[in-house]
Amino acid sequence: MQIGMVGLGKMGYQLSLNLMEKGHAVSAYDVNKESVDNISKDGGQGAYTLEELVKQLDRPRKIWMMVPAGEITEQVFNQLLPLLDEGDILIDGGNAHYKDSLRRYDVAKEKGVSYLDCGTSGGVEGARNGACTMIGGDKEAFDQVESIFKEISVDKGYLYTGKAGSGHFLKMIHNGIEYGMMQAIAEGFEILEKSPFDYDYEKVSTVWNNGSVIRSWLMELMENAFSKDSKLDKIKGVMHSSGEGKWTVETALDFQTAAPVIALSLMMRYRSLEDDTFTGKVVAALRNEFGGHAVVEK
Amino acid sequence: MQIGMVGLGKMGYQLSLNLMEKGHAVSAYDVNKESVDNISKDGGQGAYTLEELVKQLDRPRKIWMMVPAGEITEQVFNQLLPLLDEGDILIDGGNAHYKDSLRRYDVAKEKGVSYLDCGTSGGVEGARNGACTMIGGDKEAFDQVESIFKEISVDKGYLYTGKAGSGHFLKMIHNGIEYGMMQAIAEGFEILEKSPFDYDYEKVSTVWNNGSVIRSWLMELMENAFSKDSKLDKIKGVMHSSGEGKWTVETALDFQTAAPVIALSLMMRYRSLEDDTFTGKVVAALRNEFGGHAVVEK
Amino acid sequence: MQIGMVGLGKMGYQLSLNLMEKGHAVSAYDVNKESVDNISKDGGQGAYTLEELVKQLDRPRKIWMMVPAGEITEQVFNQLLPLLDEGDILIDGGNAHYKDSLRRYDVAKEKGVSYLDCGTSGGVEGARNGACTMIGGDKEAFDQVESIFKEISVDKGYLYTGKAGSGHFLKMIHNGIEYGMMQAIAEGFEILEKSPFDYDYEKVSTVWNNGSVIRSWLMELMENAFSKDSKLDKIKGVMHSSGEGKWTVETALDFQTAAPVIALSLMMRYRSLEDDTFTGKVVAALRNEFGGHAVVEK
Amino acid sequence: MQIGMVGLGKMGYQLSLNLMEKGHAVSAYDVNKESVDNISKDGGQGAYTLEELVKQLDRPRKIWMMVPAGEITEQVFNQLLPLLDEGDILIDGGNAHYKDSLRRYDVAKEKGVSYLDCGTSGGVEGARNGACTMIGGDKEAFDQVESIFKEISVDKGYLYTGKAGSGHFLKMIHNGIEYGMMQAIAEGFEILEKSPFDYDYEKVSTVWNNGSVIRSWLMELMENAFSKDSKLDKIKGVMHSSGEGKWTVETALDFQTAAPVIALSLMMRYRSLEDDTFTGKVVAALRNEFGGHAVVEK
Repeated sequence: MQIGMVGLGKMGYQLSLNLMEKGHAVSAYDVNKESVDNISKDGGQGAYTLEELVKQLDRPRKIWMMVPAGEITEQVFNQLLPLLDEGDILIDGGNAHYKDSLRRYDVAKEKGVSYLDCGTSGGVEGARNGACTMIGGDKEAFDQVESIFKEISVDKGYLYTGKAGSGHFLKMIHNGIEYGMMQAIAEGFEILEKSPFDYDYEKVSTVWNNGSVIRSWLMELMENAFSKDSKLDKIKGVMHSSGEGKWTVETALDFQTAAPVIALSLMMRYRSLEDDTFTGKVVAALRNEFGGHAVVEK
Repeated sequence: MQIGMVGLGKMGYQLSLNLMEKGHAVSAYDVNKESVDNISKDGGQGAYTLEELVKQLDRPRKIWMMVPAGEITEQVFNQLLPLLDEGDILIDGGNAHYKDSLRRYDVAKEKGVSYLDCGTSGGVEGARNGACTMIGGDKEAFDQVESIFKEISVDKGYLYTGKAGSGHFLKMIHNGIEYGMMQAIAEGFEILEKSPFDYDYEKVSTVWNNGSVIRSWLMELMENAFSKDSKLDKIKGVMHSSGEGKWTVETALDFQTAAPVIALSLMMRYRSLEDDTFTGKVVAALRNEFGGHAVVEK
Repeated sequence: MQIGMVGLGKMGYQLSLNLMEKGHAVSAYDVNKESVDNISKDGGQGAYTLEELVKQLDRPRKIWMMVPAGEITEQVFNQLLPLLDEGDILIDGGNAHYKDSLRRYDVAKEKGVSYLDCGTSGGVEGARNGACTMIGGDKEAFDQVESIFKEISVDKGYLYTGKAGSGHFLKMIHNGIEYGMMQAIAEGFEILEKSPFDYDYEKVSTVWNNGSVIRSWLMELMENAFSKDSKLDKIKGVMHSSGEGKWTVETALDFQTAAPVIALSLMMRYRSLEDDTFTGKVVAALRNEFGGHAVVEK
Repeated sequence: MQIGMVGLGKMGYQLSLNLMEKGHAVSAYDVNKESVDNISKDGGQGAYTLEELVKQLDRPRKIWMMVPAGEITEQVFNQLLPLLDEGDILIDGGNAHYKDSLRRYDVAKEKGVSYLDCGTSGGVEGARNGACTMIGGDKEAFDQVESIFKEISVDKGYLYTGKAGSGHFLKMIHNGIEYGMMQAIAEGFEILEKSPFDYDYEKVSTVWNNGSVIRSWLMELMENAFSKDSKLDKIKGVMHSSGEGKWTVETALDFQTAAPVIALSLMMRYRSLEDDTFTGKVVAALRNEFGGHAVVEK
């Protein structure tokens, strides 16, 4: 199949290679000309403008957007949609908020363009060698491009999830679970680190990955991480987040759902961004006021 | 009444002054000779050993222990009990664990000594001018010394709480609630501090103390604190804890009770003791492994 | 001063009585005609339409909206604003989201109408006998109506908080703190309830209110509550919420702030709305799968 | 090797079969005579008393205890130790608290008996076909029986973890992480369940297990669970716990570690055991007191 790729960042580039390896013809655009040059060398057809990309594709076009969620997705969508024709299929493979995807689905539909919201998991490695994809939108549109999802994903690693928005929603929840799992693993290792015992964390990760209840891909990644830096001495414990965890918590609140583990996973990430907190100052001040407990002066 | 005071620290000294003001004769012992000298000057009878203290008191003796919970309470109790006689009443006004108080009650009872566990709240100020006391143990023993509790406490500020252990248990829960309230107040101010608005926190504390749902003594203390340091710039947000919060959480677990607010109040205190965390390192390492997200190097 | 009141619900009616008692002339409108009839009997001037209300007031008008936040506030605002003239002052005394108040401030400003966002605390009792008010908006507008806030609030119980939105923001945070305090108190009593001791909760509330660190208006309310139902046997532990707690948590997330206690207070309320949870089913199913642990069948 | 098995419950029986399959001679004891009869039929040597078991084994004996943690382990240990001789090796494969294992190690050492604390994960299936084992204690003792751990575990699924206690400590932390992971997964599915979408949870579990970041054995178990009961309609969301999660939280507190995710996972389990809570009653009562909010009557 002929596929247009918009965005040749970490994910989009690997996905393009993956698609070409499976025999698809990839035309690709990126704002970064060097990336476009590179994809041409790697067997793709480069496009230096969205207009050029659209012209390179036969109708009905199949275009995969793989750009950062938020403003950039909005911008690209707004530029791209006017260039498309009835019957074209536009796949958003990024981490868009499901409500934005619902809105874009409606806007695209008015023009006769099918919008599929595709949550993509598995990281950069997965994009190259086998991802996990969850796709929402019209079933007829999905059917036309199912082979793409099938081929870029690992075996059994793609799913048509239902109506528009359901793909990105499912990916959001996936990430919320991921936050919780990561924090759970991390808390466990922190208690180990403070214990009177002297564990080899790489070996611990290995044994936990072989036969235990908590064996998982994340634990495999811990083996890799500890094999390179046995006590993680080289890095700081600053935990950034990219938005999906926050959306999951906000969505839980919208549904009046208690999701304490996901919420706390997110909040401990926020806490890690600060050296000192006003919360701490207030509590320290109060303790000083009522109990005469010494405060730590700056 | 003639009362023996063991421990002339921040709390014990003020309590002695309070008792003397109410017309009681106080004999007082402390390991620190200077404190004993001082109490003599302030109208008490100093005792430089526990033996001396015991001799100064008529039977049945009424002795108030006001020493740090844990090992020191245990030590003092073990030294003091052999010196006492049947009918004597021993009050532990410190923050002992209720299970320890139960044990000590039993040990004392074998000797015919009545043990009262008295939780004391209100801080140093309260000890001097009107505390809040919660007293567990035998009702007959309580009745003999009720006037003491009545006089050192503010009006309606003392309560016989029931059988042995119940006084210290109630004080423990009081402190658990205190942890939660303090953290709630502190989180509120932290959000204010990050807001786009420019609040005068002293005035905020004042308005919240006058007519609002959250008016409270803790909020009054915030007025004091902010009046001295309007943004708490001079102190660090290090939140120490002295044990009762931990006991409350452990007790909640023993009773299979969900007490998330008290538990998190405690855990955020622990978190504030650390500049960096192993938890954070693990999560940062994982994000790097699967997403190629940059880590912050040390 | 002549004041227009829009909304004669629980809060608005009491506030009107409060204002009249202080010598103000109150014209009042409500969709409910009976309430309008009643306020006339109680000394106010009734208005059966917004138009009528506006006509009853001399310019520059001072109008206090006391209607439920959300759609109704939006509706009333949209109906009222076209009837007003340059120089009029519109006070929103309800629990609007501060971002909505900011927006309304801007819309009103275009017409030359001053919008003040006033957070009102203290409950129904406070509205009648002395509330706590936090007011954001233009200082000049505030100055014109300061006497109103001063007279309906308890002494020191009103504060001009700064630019538009800051009043409702501060009230939102106040409610967030309130959620945390309430949950902390509640967890404490739950642990007491599961303890081996037999406390009289009314007496416990009383003693905690006299001299202790956690004395507070909320604890006074516990005295009232327990005096009427000593073990709260008559009510179910269903904890509703009206929105401000959710906004506080969402705002904390927007500012990347860890506010675990406020978040958990809210989530435990959500949890209380459900008899059974899907979370619980999933965990039970997992335990059954790996450990053969029996599940509770329905 | 000749191995004595004490305890033929779910885990011990399967482990015995596993050991025999690997060519070991198993003598086995249980209080339940039927289990002993059965193991004889399955190729083992049955022992109807601990004395009989000990006699069946050549010195130095290798005995594996697989009995419930707590009182029963204590009892069996106290009965068994006097029957053993210097040089014998006693393995506790159950879920004992690491502090108990440390104590038993010391007691056994005085008699010249080597005590190994072996955390065993992987469930009943793992015990039969390949477990995950983490072993603490003297290295020399471990070396003598390493082949046992190697053979009953999956490849790379056993680890000598260091000095006494470290095996059970590591297993405890493993379970703490497990609690957090399970709750994270469960919260995710609860939000899905409340979403406007209509997911097939078995298929969701499958797609998440193929290529996604959260692929894990627990997610595989979700596939099984949903394949049998697609919405878990047949079970109640009652989440029991067997102790290791509680120990993990207590240990975190002992080390002054913030482990909010593991703590909340545990507390939500406790919450699930109750239909109504006193916490909820208190909050509902307070809302009624200050806001006149209706309570739900029983």
